Amino acid sequence: MRNTDPLKGTAQYQVVKFRGADVTNTEEPVVEELPLTIYLNGKELVTMLAAYGEEDYLVTGFLATEGIIQNIKDIKSLDVDVLQGIIHVTTASGETVAEKMFLKRYLTACCGKGRSAFYFANDVLTAKTVDSEIKLTAQQAMAYSEMLESASATFRLTGGVHGGALAAEGKLVCWSQDIGRHNVFDKLYGRCLIEGISTHDKVLVFSGRVSSEIILKVSKMNISIIIARSAPTSLALDMAEELGVTVIGFAREERLNVYTHAERIIGC
Amino acid sequence: MRNTDPLKGTAQYQVVKFRGADVTNTEEPVVEELPLTIYLNGKELVTMLAAYGEEDYLVTGFLATEGIIQNIKDIKSLDVDVLQGIIHVTTASGETVAEKMFLKRYLTACCGKGRSAFYFANDVLTAKTVDSEIKLTAQQAMAYSEMLESASATFRLTGGVHGGALAAEGKLVCWSQDIGRHNVFDKLYGRCLIEGISTHDKVLVFSGRVSSEIILKVSKMNISIIIARSAPTSLALDMAEELGVTVIGFAREERLNVYTHAERIIGC
Repeated sequence: MRNTDPLKGTAQYQVVKFRGADVTNTEEPVVEELPLTIYLNGKELVTMLAAYGEEDYLVTGFLATEGIIQNIKDIKSLDVDVLQGIIHVTTASGETVAEKMFLKRYLTACCGKGRSAFYFANDVLTAKTVDSEIKLTAQQAMAYSEMLESASATFRLTGGVHGGALAAEGKLVCWSQDIGRHNVFDKLYGRCLIEGISTHDKVLVFSGRVSSEIILKVSKMNISIIIARSAPTSLALDMAEELGVTVIGFAREERLNVYTHAERIIGC
Repeated sequence: MRNTDPLKGTAQYQVVKFRGADVTNTEEPVVEELPLTIYLNGKELVTMLAAYGEEDYLVTGFLATEGIIQNIKDIKSLDVDVLQGIIHVTTASGETVAEKMFLKRYLTACCGKGRSAFYFANDVLTAKTVDSEIKLTAQQAMAYSEMLESASATFRLTGGVHGGALAAEGKLVCWSQDIGRHNVFDKLYGRCLIEGISTHDKVLVFSGRVSSEIILKVSKMNISIIIARSAPTSLALDMAEELGVTVIGFAREERLNVYTHAERIIGC
C-alpha cells in the first residue's frame, strides 16, 4: 500500500477522490507520522509522535523545554535510529531533578488556581519573564507570516503539518515543521541550541493556534513576540500578559490582531 | 482585562486590530482554556487543558479511552468543580490495571516496530478491530461535513476550537467542541456512555487532522467511518487499514478523499 520516500517525509497512499460527481482512483502524498522513543541515560523517558526529520533538534529542544538540560553542553551523546524510532541520549550530569519531575507531572500537577496558572511543576523552573528591546511594525509581522506560508512544501503537498520559524531583519532565519504543534517549537529550540543561534533578538512565526503550552515554550526560549496565523486561547493570553510576551494572532495577508504587550508593535 | 462569559466558553479580550493601514482598539471574543485536574479515587491522575463545558463527558470519555473504566456502571461518583478546575471520580472497582498502566505509558512504551505500531500498552487492551455494516454515499459524507461546519458558533466567533459530531440518518446526533483535538473525541465518547447513545451505527465527523491517536480513539468507540475536513497522517492510515476503519479526509463542500476501507462508500 505504501511507497515511502523518507527524504521528503511523505508517503504515497492510494485514494479514491470524489470531486462533485467525478470519481477517480489515484495516489496522494500523506505526511509521515513516526513514533520516537527517547532513552535518557539508558532509561526509557517518553514516546513522541512526530513528523520525519530534525529528530536531533526535536529531542534537544524537548529536553531543554522540560528543564532536563540547561544548555547544549549538558548533552554528552545523542544517537538517532530513525528506522527503529529510538533515540539514545546521555547527559553529563546523570539523572536530574527535572527528569524526576517530568515523570511526576502526570502525578502531582500544581494546578493553576490563580491568574498565573502554572499547572505543571517543571514550568515554574523553566518559564521566565521575557525582557526584550525588539520592536516591529504590523507590516513586518504580516510579511513574516506570508514568508512562513510560502516556506512549507510538505504542507502544500499534504495539508498535514504545522510550520514555525524564527525571523529577524526581514527574513526567516530557520524553519521547522511537524504534525504536532508542540514539536515545531521543540525542533526550533533544539536547532538554536545545537547551532548556537540566538533567540532573544528574533521573533517567532507560527501557523497554528496559540494555547497556554505554546506561550510557556516561547517564554522558555526567551522570545518576546509570537506571530500566529491562527487564534489564541484565554489562558495563553493571561500567561503571555504575565510573562511579557507579545501575542499576535490571525496574521494573514493584510490583517492581524495584537492581543498582549502591544508596546512592541510600532503604531499601536 | 477580562470580562468572562462562562456560559459561552469565551471571554472578551482587548485587541489592537490592523486591517491594511487601519488600526482600531476594540474587544474580541477568545475561546476559554481551562486546566482540569482529575482525582481518581482520591489520587491525582492527570491535568488536562480543555475548553469550557461538558467536563463530565470529557472525563468519562477519557477514562473509557484509557481503559480505566469499561462502562458507565464502573463510575460510582463524578463531581466537577469548574471554578477550581478539579474533578473527583470514584470507581466501583478501586485501582485497576489500566490505571497503573496509564502512568507507565510515559515510562515503558512498547514502541511500534512493526506495521501495526501500537506504541502504548493501554491501546493493546482497548483498541479493537471495528466491524460494521454501515454504508454511505460520498454525497452523504459531504453533507455531514457541512453540517459540522454550520454547528460551531464558538469556532466562528473565536477560530480557536475543533468540532466533532456523531451522525446518522442524515443528521448530527450529538456534537462537541474543544481546544484539543483529542478532547473532542473524549467528550463525544463520554456523552454516548452517560446518555446510552449507541456508537456502532453512527459515523464520526471531525474538523481536525487525523493522526494515529485519533484512529485509536475511533476504534475504541467502535465507530467504522471517520469523515474529516482536514488531512490524515501515514501512521493513522496504517492503523485504520488494520483496525477496519474507513478514513475520509479533506471533506469540504463538493469534495472528499477516501483513504482506507473504501468498500463502505457506495460508488467506490
